[in-house]
Amino acid sequence: MRIPEHIGIIPDGNRRWAQKKGLSKEKGYNQGLNPGLELFHLCKKIGIKELSYYGFTMDNTKRPRKQTEAFSNACVKAVQLLAKEDALLRVIGNTSSAKFPQELLKYTKRQQFGQGGIKLNFLVNYGWQWDLVNLYKRKKISQKNINNYLKSNDVSKVDLIIRWGGRRRLSGFLPVQSVYADFYVIDDYWPDFKPEHLYQALAWYDCQDITLGG
Amino acid sequence: MRIPEHIGIIPDGNRRWAQKKGLSKEKGYNQGLNPGLELFHLCKKIGIKELSYYGFTMDNTKRPRKQTEAFSNACVKAVQLLAKEDALLRVIGNTSSAKFPQELLKYTKRQQFGQGGIKLNFLVNYGWQWDLVNLYKRKKISQKNINNYLKSNDVSKVDLIIRWGGRRRLSGFLPVQSVYADFYVIDDYWPDFKPEHLYQALAWYDCQDITLGG
Repeated sequence: MRIPEHIGIIPDGNRRWAQKKGLSKEKGYNQGLNPGLELFHLCKKIGIKELSYYGFTMDNTKRPRKQTEAFSNACVKAVQLLAKEDALLRVIGNTSSAKFPQELLKYTKRQQFGQGGIKLNFLVNYGWQWDLVNLYKRKKISQKNINNYLKSNDVSKVDLIIRWGGRRRLSGFLPVQSVYADFYVIDDYWPDFKPEHLYQALAWYDCQDITLGG
Repeated sequence: MRIPEHIGIIPDGNRRWAQKKGLSKEKGYNQGLNPGLELFHLCKKIGIKELSYYGFTMDNTKRPRKQTEAFSNACVKAVQLLAKEDALLRVIGNTSSAKFPQELLKYTKRQQFGQGGIKLNFLVNYGWQWDLVNLYKRKKISQKNINNYLKSNDVSKVDLIIRWGGRRRLSGFLPVQSVYADFYVIDDYWPDFKPEHLYQALAWYDCQDITLGG
């Protein structure tokens, strides 16, 4: 079976899950913590080399305060949980805004936790514009090394993106690393994560060819 | 009905169509000309304001010569056909390579043909790296005006991308303009285009919400 090296995770549908349960929207975010940890363990077992979680974006912070606080807190907890595992972890996002949780500043340089191994990227207060804009003037940029000039410069090409919650869009997720990614959408909401979702996505990915645009 | 302002078209599956018919791969490209013209007319009728066709990419030119000649010729013919219509047409791509068809040089500045109206972008020898590379040569780019520094700077945000041929990936299509695009995949190959494909995609798009990441 052909296994993707790098999987991007868009864990969408937390608010819709909460509403479906008769809860207020912001109650959905904490329900995404266990799924995130379970998915991480599965990916390690399968031999995935790199995993990127879409935590929250600069766009998302325009939402009502109750919600922004709830998803921000959930991301802090998620990173703290993942930092107890074996991983090479980096939190990636715009730290120069008040929306970036201070508790996560210490994770913004890549660090080994436990025995290391899987490379783990967690996007927090991430913005695609922020990622693309480099304020320092570079004189010689070739088309071949664009990735070096991203803020997310140590994130590899994404092979497979899995999005929960039924929407078929990238919503600004790592636009440069995702140019060739295969995109699999799961209709269930993220808090309803099941291992079968990952297996389905991997089985589908196994049937795709890789051309890298060639 | 909510209609997208800007539709991106990824007309994939020409080679697979040819093989299915027992023809050699390069015979598929010319079969995409009529579908392209038919789709253009439908989009005008529906009131779409902007349309972007993925002609061929710098990545694609690594293919065998018979194929690169065939898709290059098909793109020349397609642009010449579209230039007979009412449109604001621009061909966008890397003109400094020998792979760019000389016949299309005169279309690389936006021009009105006929009565104008719909904005029409045709990507020829396009490369996502080529499109982005200026971003890193400027001293001060604000996150709000990134699009101004793209080579494809007069192409608007894409609302809906329709890809024929079953693959669920962007393959480098306008990565910045596509960050929020809804992505609809049609399993049929591009030469088997039917108006119903467009109507299905539009009906699906009508059921999506727009959040622009918010």
